[in-house]
This record gives sequence, structure tokens and C-alpha cells, in this order.
Amino acid sequence: MAYEARHMKWWGWGYEDAEFRASRHPDFWPYAKSVLDIETDDFPRREWSMESIELPEPRTDERFLAKLRPSLAPSQITDDAKERVIHAYGKGFRDLFRLRHGIAAGAPDLIVYPESERDVCLALRAAAERDVVLIPFGGGSNIAGCLERMDATRMCVSLDMRRMRRVLAVDRRSFTAQIEAGVLGPDLEEQLSAHGMTLGHFPDSFLHSTLGGWIATRSAGMQSDKYGKIEDMVIAVRMVTPEGVLQTRVVPKSSNGIDVNHLCIGSEGTLGVITEATMRVHDIPESRQVRCYLFPEFEGGIEAMHECVSQECMPAMVRLNDPDKTALSLAFRPPSSGFSKIAGSLFKTYLRVKGFAQPRTCLMLTAFEGRPRELSRRLQQAEAIYKKCGAVGLGAGAGNSFEATKYDFPHIRDFLLDRNVTTDVSETATVWSNIPTLYKDTTKVLRAEIGKTGVRPWAGCHISHTYMCGASLYFTFGFRQQPGHELEQYLQIKRTVQQSFIDRGATLSHHHAVGTEHLPWLSADISPVGGQAVSAIKQGLDPANIMNPGRLLPSSTPLEDWLTLGLPLRPAEALKK
Amino acid sequence: MAYEARHMKWWGWGYEDAEFRASRHPDFWPYAKSVLDIETDDFPRREWSMESIELPEPRTDERFLAKLRPSLAPSQITDDAKERVIHAYGKGFRDLFRLRHGIAAGAPDLIVYPESERDVCLALRAAAERDVVLIPFGGGSNIAGCLERMDATRMCVSLDMRRMRRVLAVDRRSFTAQIEAGVLGPDLEEQLSAHGMTLGHFPDSFLHSTLGGWIATRSAGMQSDKYGKIEDMVIAVRMVTPEGVLQTRVVPKSSNGIDVNHLCIGSEGTLGVITEATMRVHDIPESRQVRCYLFPEFEGGIEAMHECVSQECMPAMVRLNDPDKTALSLAFRPPSSGFSKIAGSLFKTYLRVKGFAQPRTCLMLTAFEGRPRELSRRLQQAEAIYKKCGAVGLGAGAGNSFEATKYDFPHIRDFLLDRNVTTDVSETATVWSNIPTLYKDTTKVLRAEIGKTGVRPWAGCHISHTYMCGASLYFTFGFRQQPGHELEQYLQIKRTVQQSFIDRGATLSHHHAVGTEHLPWLSADISPVGGQAVSAIKQGLDPANIMNPGRLLPSSTPLEDWLTLGLPLRPAEALKK
Repeated sequence: MAYEARHMKWWGWGYEDAEFRASRHPDFWPYAKSVLDIETDDFPRREWSMESIELPEPRTDERFLAKLRPSLAPSQITDDAKERVIHAYGKGFRDLFRLRHGIAAGAPDLIVYPESERDVCLALRAAAERDVVLIPFGGGSNIAGCLERMDATRMCVSLDMRRMRRVLAVDRRSFTAQIEAGVLGPDLEEQLSAHGMTLGHFPDSFLHSTLGGWIATRSAGMQSDKYGKIEDMVIAVRMVTPEGVLQTRVVPKSSNGIDVNHLCIGSEGTLGVITEATMRVHDIPESRQVRCYLFPEFEGGIEAMHECVSQECMPAMVRLNDPDKTALSLAFRPPSSGFSKIAGSLFKTYLRVKGFAQPRTCLMLTAFEGRPRELSRRLQQAEAIYKKCGAVGLGAGAGNSFEATKYDFPHIRDFLLDRNVTTDVSETATVWSNIPTLYKDTTKVLRAEIGKTGVRPWAGCHISHTYMCGASLYFTFGFRQQPGHELEQYLQIKRTVQQSFIDRGATLSHHHAVGTEHLPWLSADISPVGGQAVSAIKQGLDPANIMNPGRLLPSSTPLEDWLTLGLPLRPAEALKK
Repeated sequence: MAYEARHMKWWGWGYEDAEFRASRHPDFWPYAKSVLDIETDDFPRREWSMESIELPEPRTDERFLAKLRPSLAPSQITDDAKERVIHAYGKGFRDLFRLRHGIAAGAPDLIVYPESERDVCLALRAAAERDVVLIPFGGGSNIAGCLERMDATRMCVSLDMRRMRRVLAVDRRSFTAQIEAGVLGPDLEEQLSAHGMTLGHFPDSFLHSTLGGWIATRSAGMQSDKYGKIEDMVIAVRMVTPEGVLQTRVVPKSSNGIDVNHLCIGSEGTLGVITEATMRVHDIPESRQVRCYLFPEFEGGIEAMHECVSQECMPAMVRLNDPDKTALSLAFRPPSSGFSKIAGSLFKTYLRVKGFAQPRTCLMLTAFEGRPRELSRRLQQAEAIYKKCGAVGLGAGAGNSFEATKYDFPHIRDFLLDRNVTTDVSETATVWSNIPTLYKDTTKVLRAEIGKTGVRPWAGCHISHTYMCGASLYFTFGFRQQPGHELEQYLQIKRTVQQSFIDRGATLSHHHAVGTEHLPWLSADISPVGGQAVSAIKQGLDPANIMNPGRLLPSSTPLEDWLTLGLPLRPAEALKK
């Protein structure tokens, strides 16, 4: 197997041998210290050991196991402690913070590795018969709380899908590929590239997330401006539900009533297990140009993005950082990168002369893809717009530097957690006319709320994923922890951001899913009747509620549940035998 | 009101003062006679009179009416006989044939014209309390059997939505418009044009169909290649259901679980009444070029369409006629049109020299839209492809002739029905790799099946609505009627086409909905578990089944139901008091 299912470290992002290397990003820590009011470098180096984890005894139903064992190989079933910890959570702040405090109450009792749809059907049948809970698991990268066990009263099994990783067929003529859902991003792209094709889906989690996870959460890749969100790419799907296999036809569009593809997309594991999908794929683009620009202020950058949409010359990817996110990006840059030019005093002088004020300057990253002629036409048209909006191009070097480190960013959090700093993100989408207000108001309430916890706030935002009607706003925030109240502090701040989205007409998430972290805002987002419809689908396909309970269907007190999930910080007694 | 809700004639397509004028299309009838083996011109001119209609006595629940009357104006409620006949059916063959035989068993007992969402809520509340059936009615143009009353045991009310016709708000910056669902196509475009905007949705039924109808049936406009199908344009929706108002947020994209917009889209009136939608709109294109081309054979035309998709230079509209549909189109052309050039002997000679054989030649219609520079680039790129595939351009005159008559085509059917000829259409979509087989096989079985009924077959096809992964195939067929067995003959043939779609991997319809006409193939199309999911949504939002019963949820004997619906040809006794 080219890509064995290597696990991420349980205490943070990435493989165990990968981490944020401060030496590669020498400006980062000084920047963080300065903006977060940190005065010391004296943080103990933690060694993460499984021994620190208090893992509940597994709840084991032997009759459930007896149904699996005759058909599955021993390597497909495990209750190994480390495996259980790895499958306990995703990578949200609440997840990592608890694991780092030795708490793995969300751990499943067992992990099963299906190798075929038959195996999945077998697991669902056995689970339905024995009232066992199943949680589909892809790469484990989710940060919205989609993976934690929410029901301590029943046996819980994590279905790790990563052995179902094959591209089954490619129809080059029709630009479709039939793909098993457990394939990880790099593996998928490698298999497709043998056919000269690409899915064009590159989320920040690309290295550690799977096709099935993308579909179940309505993921977006960096190049969604060109290739669409994952829901735009799904042509047909197979999903094993407790009621049988739901499957749709490989047709580009239909008028066959309610589109049942869209019942599977975004279902977050609550209806069944997505085993396979036929996806729209593309020829690998002949050329690619990554370019960076500086705008004298955020508003000009937004105007430029909007104008590209109006003139239908959007790049494949665009990411406009606000001034604080720009400062973070510059601080993050490797010393040998094209970015270093920016730091050069010559360039600084040039920018000052041109009216760029450091505190307001915004960095925009773009990528253009396609046939050389079309690419160059589009790039020229977009650059003319950027220039009109006051931008200065930084040349290809800076862009390539971004390319080289684009999947490194999530490692920052672990580095800062080690230094008693909480960071997290909340992202949303809104229409163009609402972007300025949503941005300003959310930034304001977010900073104020952090301030209320007695520490200096840091908040930045980038706008990306442009559509005709609007775009995504992605807020990143960080602050020193209140010792002993880290989780409460996080919840107070996170709640403020999410409530700001909903109060200001935006959605609870553009591409991170509902999970547990956004569940209190679901009913306001899709309306109570919309929620009732989702509940009806659940009732129809999973009447015994064995599939990933606790998601998509808020209780009568969702905010209270949310504020207390995992608190107080101790392993749930209920899980102990 | 600029657009009062004028009804279509009950016995055919279009307003009462509009019909197919043979004098405008002098070649058409000779062509039809020749291909259908018709030897006479001696068909009696029928005058359609309401007196010929056997209309069941209305079933009236006075307590239901008592709930409406205090809040609605007298003009909003009617049981006028002609209104009832007009609201009895859509415009499918089975619909028209029965009406022309005096049968209006599908007629509602009452028609209510809501003027606000409050009125709709009132009607649903009253209907739920009194177990009255509601059928939402837009323009009445549906040809898949979405409008006929299927339940004779309960009072049935048609909710004619056309008084809810306002564009409520346009957000030019965000390219969105908030629109009441009952607005007809021309009215909508006129209101949007005051803001310089267009929806870009121009189905063949444009003059006589509404926004709500488009959304409820997953409609496609001619320019879907550029603007998408209606489901791609819906940003947010409001739908009144028996359980309350489902509403979604005006955001470009989201990751808020199952996308409940897609529960409303395609719901065909079975879950509630769509009262309002926020739609993606566009600047009115600065230029538009309609162009026609002749391809020496169908395969070359398909290749050209595929290549335009590959190179991302699709026209806004493309319609490739197969040889028979080409012959029909040429026969349909007005004598003064640009098409007349084609008939000129000079041009004929030119084509012969170039290797065009009349029986294999295919006509392609295209429209390019946008800013002049982008339009001309796209047109040039596409024309280079067309040329490479052997096409000859016919100049702008032929294209403009198509534009002038583009909404006239549906009138042909009435003209032919008057002459004892049945015509109908079945359309589908499939992936590119499957198009040649699906086309050849379906045409073959369709012709054979018509032949089996003892008459000469006519069948043509056009390919349109291109997507990255495939396109729509639209079959038109016609034949002399077997006197006394017209409906059985139609069903035998229609069944063969639909079964061919499903047997060959295609879908039951690309943009005409399921209704009653395609219901026997729904389970094969979306899988039984998919059907179960749809059924669960219905159960959740309309537990008493008052909304448009008989759609989307096949009985245990769907084909038997289908083969007997409306047969034998007599008014249903059950409907009589």
C-alpha cells in the first residue's frame, strides 16, 4: 500500500515525526510574544506519553464481536489503548486540551477497519442488532467535534475507513472517477494523477483527511473558487445506512425529485457510512502560478475580489488577509523565502512612498491554474483589477514560499498550546454586501470578549472561497490562557464569535461542519422546521440512532450541553465499568 | 399589475389567443404528412367549449371554507367551472388528451389565490385541520403529471401562486434577489431588468411557468450551460409546510449539515408551498450572439460540445439536433428567416461539395453571452472547435430566426393533436461516455415500439445542457394515433423510452420532474433506500399527507398505477358526489 493509514499524533496536528519548527520560522515566536504579552521563554518541554491518559475501560459486547470475527481479519479489529485514544477526538481545541489533560472520555471501545463495503454492511448489521454505536472515522482531522463519543451507555465503535482507499475507475471522457471514501488526500491525488486527473480539492487538512470525511462535512478546498466545494463535485454516492445501501446514479444532473445525494452530503456520519463516491475530476492543469499582492488596506482587497467575481476572472484560489493576519503571515515566513524581500528595507521604503502603512497593509495570496493562454488572460485581467484597487505585486517568489508551507499552519497551535496559549478558528460565509459589517463587528466583539478574560486579544481574519454571491470569512484568534479555566475561557470566546455570525445573518460554518462545536447555532441557521426535516431523515434511515449520535439533532438545551461538554475536566465516570 | 395571471387555454399550450399558425411555418405540415404517412388534409376544425367537459361536482368542506373566508377576499377563492378545468392538469399528453375527451377528473374542488405568505399559512393550517388536500399551482405548464388530483376521497384545493409575483429586494452588490415564488418568467425578468439584472433562467416553458414551479421541479433553462440549473441558483428559500415555515439563510455556501435548501428543491409540492426564494442573479449580459452551425454528422457535433467543455469555452446555450430533429427544425422555420438561405440551392450545392449528406446533417444552435471581449474570445475558441469537427456556420440570420420563435415549439403538439397525431417528449441526462450508446439504443427501441403499434415512427433527439461530466438528451417523438387506443398507445411508447433511460444508466428526467409520468422509475433511479429517505422527510413535514399526494412516493405497484391512470377514458366515478 502506497499510503498506509498512519495516524496523526494524538496530542496535536500531523504525524508524530512532524511539528512546528521554530527555527524554520524565526520571526514567529517573537511576534507571538509581542502581540500576546508573553514575557518568558521558559516553558517546560512536555513529552507526551500514553501513560498520562486515563482511558475508560472498554465496554465490550461479546455478541457484537462474535458477529464480526468470522468475517473480518484480526488486523481489522482492535481495542488497543493508543488506537482508542487516537480515535477519541478530532483536532478541535476542546479535543486537544482534554487529551493533553489525560482525558479520553470520548474514546470508542473498539476500532474496526473495514476493507470493503461488505465489511461496512456487516458492521452496521451487527451494530443494529446489538444496539452498538458506530462513528465513521476518516483522517481524524475534524475540528468541529464530529468524532467524540456522545453516548456512554452503549458500546461504541469507531469505523476507521482508511483501508478503503482505491480509485476504482476513471472515466476520462466524462471527467468522473469512482473512488472509495476512505482515501486520504495525497493518496487520492497520486492515484488520479496516473490518469492525468485531479479532484482539485485541497483543504488545509488535505494531508490528513479523506474523501468520505470531506463529503460528510461539506468541506471546501483552497481552490474552491475554480473547482467548487465538495458538494459541487459529487456526481453519485453510495452510503451504507442501517436501512440498507443508498445509492445514486452517475448522471451529471437530474430532475428526479429531492436530490438524495444531498441527504448524504453533510450528514456527518449520522445516517450511515459513505463508502464510495463518483466525483467530478479535471485534467491536471497545464500551468499554475501562485502570486502574492499587498493591498494598502483590507477594503481595497475585498473590492478587488468582488470585481474579479463580477468580471468572471477569479483565480483558482484567493486568500486576502486582514492586517493582523498579514502580520502573522509575514512573521510565519521562512527566512529564505521570497517573503524576505518584503522585510528588506528597500521594499519597506517603497511601500511607504506608495502610501502603504504597515498597520493597514493586507497580503493577498492567489493561485491561477489552467491552460497557459487562459491562465495568462485571467491573470492579466485580475492583476489589472488588483492594480486599480491599489495593490502591489510581490512576484512569484513569495507565492512559491506560500506553496511550500501551505500545510504547515495547523502546527502553530500545538506549539502555542505548549506555551499556554489558546488558539482557535471560526469561519463562516456571507453575501458580499454583508462582508464589511460582519468583519468589523465580529472582530470587535471577538477582541472585546478576549479582553474580558483579562488577557490581550489577538484576532485576524482572511477572506477566501469567493462565489458570485459572497465569500467565506475565516477568523483566527489567540490569547494567553487563564490557568485552571482554559476551557471555560475558550468557550466564552468561541461562543461570542459563533453568535456574532448568526446575529449578523451569516452561517455557523462555511466548511468545518456542525459537529458538537456549532450545534447550538444549527436551529437558528436552518430554522426549526429545517431541523425537523433533518430529524425526520434520521428517523427514517437510522431509527435506532446507532450512527454517530449527538450530531445534527440538538437537544432541547443545546447551549447548556455545549457549555458543559467535557467540563469539569475529569474523565466521565459513566464510561467506567 | 403588469402581468395578470392569465390562464393558458385548457385544451393546449399557450394563451387562448395564441396558437400554431401553419401559414408562418409553411413547410411544417407537408413535412409532418410525409414522415408520418398522413394522406389527408381533411381534419375537422374543433371548437373547444367548456360544455364538452364532464366536471365532477365539487366536494366542499364548509368548515374549511369558513376558516378562509374571514381573511381572504372573495376574488381569492373560486369554484368556477372553467377555473377548475384549467387547474385540473398540466400540459402532458395524458393531461391534454383527457381534457380533449371531456374528462376533468383531476380537477380540484376549489382554487385559492394566496396574495401573501400569511394567506398560504392560513390555507395550510385550515387544510391540516380539515384534512383537505392542497396542490401548489404555478403556471400549469408541467408535462410530467405534477398537478392532477390523485385523491378523490378528500376535498382538493389548487393553490394558484401567481399573485405572489413581486421581486422583494435586489442586492446588486451580492448578485442576489429575493423573489416571491409565484412570479411568471417574463414578469420576473421585467422586474429584474429594472435593476439591470437577469436570473438567466429561460426554460422552453418560460412564458407560462413560475419561479416556485422551477424550484419544485428542478427546472433547467436553455442557458443552463452558463447559469446552471435552477438548483444552482437558489441561495435561500422559504417553504410553508404543515409543520411551519422552513427557511434558510442568505449565504453563498455553508457547512451546516444536510443542506435543507435541497429538501425544498425538487419537492414537487409534496412537502409544502415554496413562497419565496433568494436567487443568484447576474448583470444583464452586454452582448449576445446567437449562431447556428451545420455538422456533417451527429458524432462530430457531440465531439464539438465535449471539446468546448474540456476547454472551458462552452456557449451559454447549445442545442445539437440529430438528423431527424434537424429536418424538423428546418421544416419549422419561418419562410422569411435566415434559415431560408439553407434552403437556397446554392447553399445546398455548397454543402454537397463539402460532404454534407442531407440525411446525416445536424443543426446546432448556440448562444454566447457576456462582455464583448469575453464573448468574442469564447466564440472564436468554440468556432475553431466546431470547424475542426467539420461544422459550417450559418451566420447570424439563422440564429436570430431561432430566437424569434424559440417559445413557439410547444404549440406544434396542439396542431398535431387536432390532426390525430400524438407527440410527446422524454428527456434525460447521462455522462459523456454513455451518450452515443444511450442515443442509438433509445432511438432504436423507441422507433421499434412505435412501429409495433402499426404506424410509421418519427423520433428525433437533441443534446443540450452541457456539463463537465455529461449532458441532457431530449427525445421528441410523434406518430399517428390508433383510434380508440390513443392513450394505451402513448403509454406503451413512453414506457419504452423511460425504461431505456433507466436500463442504460441514465436518469428518469433531466428537468421535467417526476410527477406521475416518471414515478414508476423513481426507485430504480434513487435506490429504494433513497426513496425511503424521501418518504421519511414527507412523514416529518407532512404527516397527514395533505400536500400534493401521489407524487415522489410510489405505491407498491407503481407501473400498474401508471398504466391505468386515467384509463378507461371516463370521468372517475369516485369523484362524483
